[in-house]
Amino acid sequence: MIEMRLSGSGGQGLILAGIILAEAALLDGKMAIQSQSYGPEARGGASKSEVIISEKAIHYPKVTNPNLVLAMTQEAVDKYSKDLPADGILMIDTTFVKSVPEHLKNVYHLPITEKVTAELGKALFANIVALGAIVATTKAVSVESITTAILHRVPKGTEDINKRALELGIALAAK
Amino acid sequence: MIEMRLSGSGGQGLILAGIILAEAALLDGKMAIQSQSYGPEARGGASKSEVIISEKAIHYPKVTNPNLVLAMTQEAVDKYSKDLPADGILMIDTTFVKSVPEHLKNVYHLPITEKVTAELGKALFANIVALGAIVATTKAVSVESITTAILHRVPKGTEDINKRALELGIALAAK
Repeated sequence: MIEMRLSGSGGQGLILAGIILAEAALLDGKMAIQSQSYGPEARGGASKSEVIISEKAIHYPKVTNPNLVLAMTQEAVDKYSKDLPADGILMIDTTFVKSVPEHLKNVYHLPITEKVTAELGKALFANIVALGAIVATTKAVSVESITTAILHRVPKGTEDINKRALELGIALAAK
Repeated sequence: MIEMRLSGSGGQGLILAGIILAEAALLDGKMAIQSQSYGPEARGGASKSEVIISEKAIHYPKVTNPNLVLAMTQEAVDKYSKDLPADGILMIDTTFVKSVPEHLKNVYHLPITEKVTAELGKALFANIVALGAIVATTKAVSVESITTAILHRVPKGTEDINKRALELGIALAAK
């Protein structure tokens, strides 16, 4: 079982990223649950989307022991990486995140938004770049399934640019 | 606390409807959780999206005692209304649903897709019509908050038609 939390600000497309990740898991023959919680903490600018992927039925669908936290803003790191264990993966977008908790050992510093804006001309695809980095790092789902799930969910006419965003994310994480 | 399950087929926009409902609850000052489960049952054509709205923190985020099931296809009724208690609300789109379980007392037979296609020219907004009917029936969130949440989530340029879809749903359920 792998528990992942995708966090950032409202406009960064992280709910969609979570849905795509869960649908890719289904394509891989696994089970998944994807959720958003809305409460007092959601009233700031930070938002989160959670995904659990498992070979077996998932009984408790909220993330309680995250294996990975993606944080696309500083506020998201501060709010949502607290319960990440020392050996958990923290993946940050260095475009917006300047400081990370010191006790963490596996921090991926990725210039996600900066890079996608430079290469594809739009920050809009940062969520898909992040998916590429997550898949390359965790192998939570196959590249084939994440590609199919992305193409199923994104608007018609944007397939090619989304594929490039995915490849960009895989390449970023491989460095 | 109110537990709702929105079910139908993959293309009917029910994940988005669930997200909008949960965001409207937050605007009303309540807490909410919205989730999708993906497992063997999701491999057919039926899909579901669940929303729980509460005044207090929600500890178990999966719907276990639904107060309302929306079913937009016959397969969705058959799969996802089984745990609805006799006094729970079943809301069906009569465009696609022909038979409902006999023990249920509160069944809303609404020609959602038929009506939205006739009035707005597109089946695409059926999910927003369904939201109108759900809000009118359950008062789970305010009309003001659901309107704000819809306008926040739908593509630019479609605000007016989405507002009309919402009003259509409210009117359908009021009959």
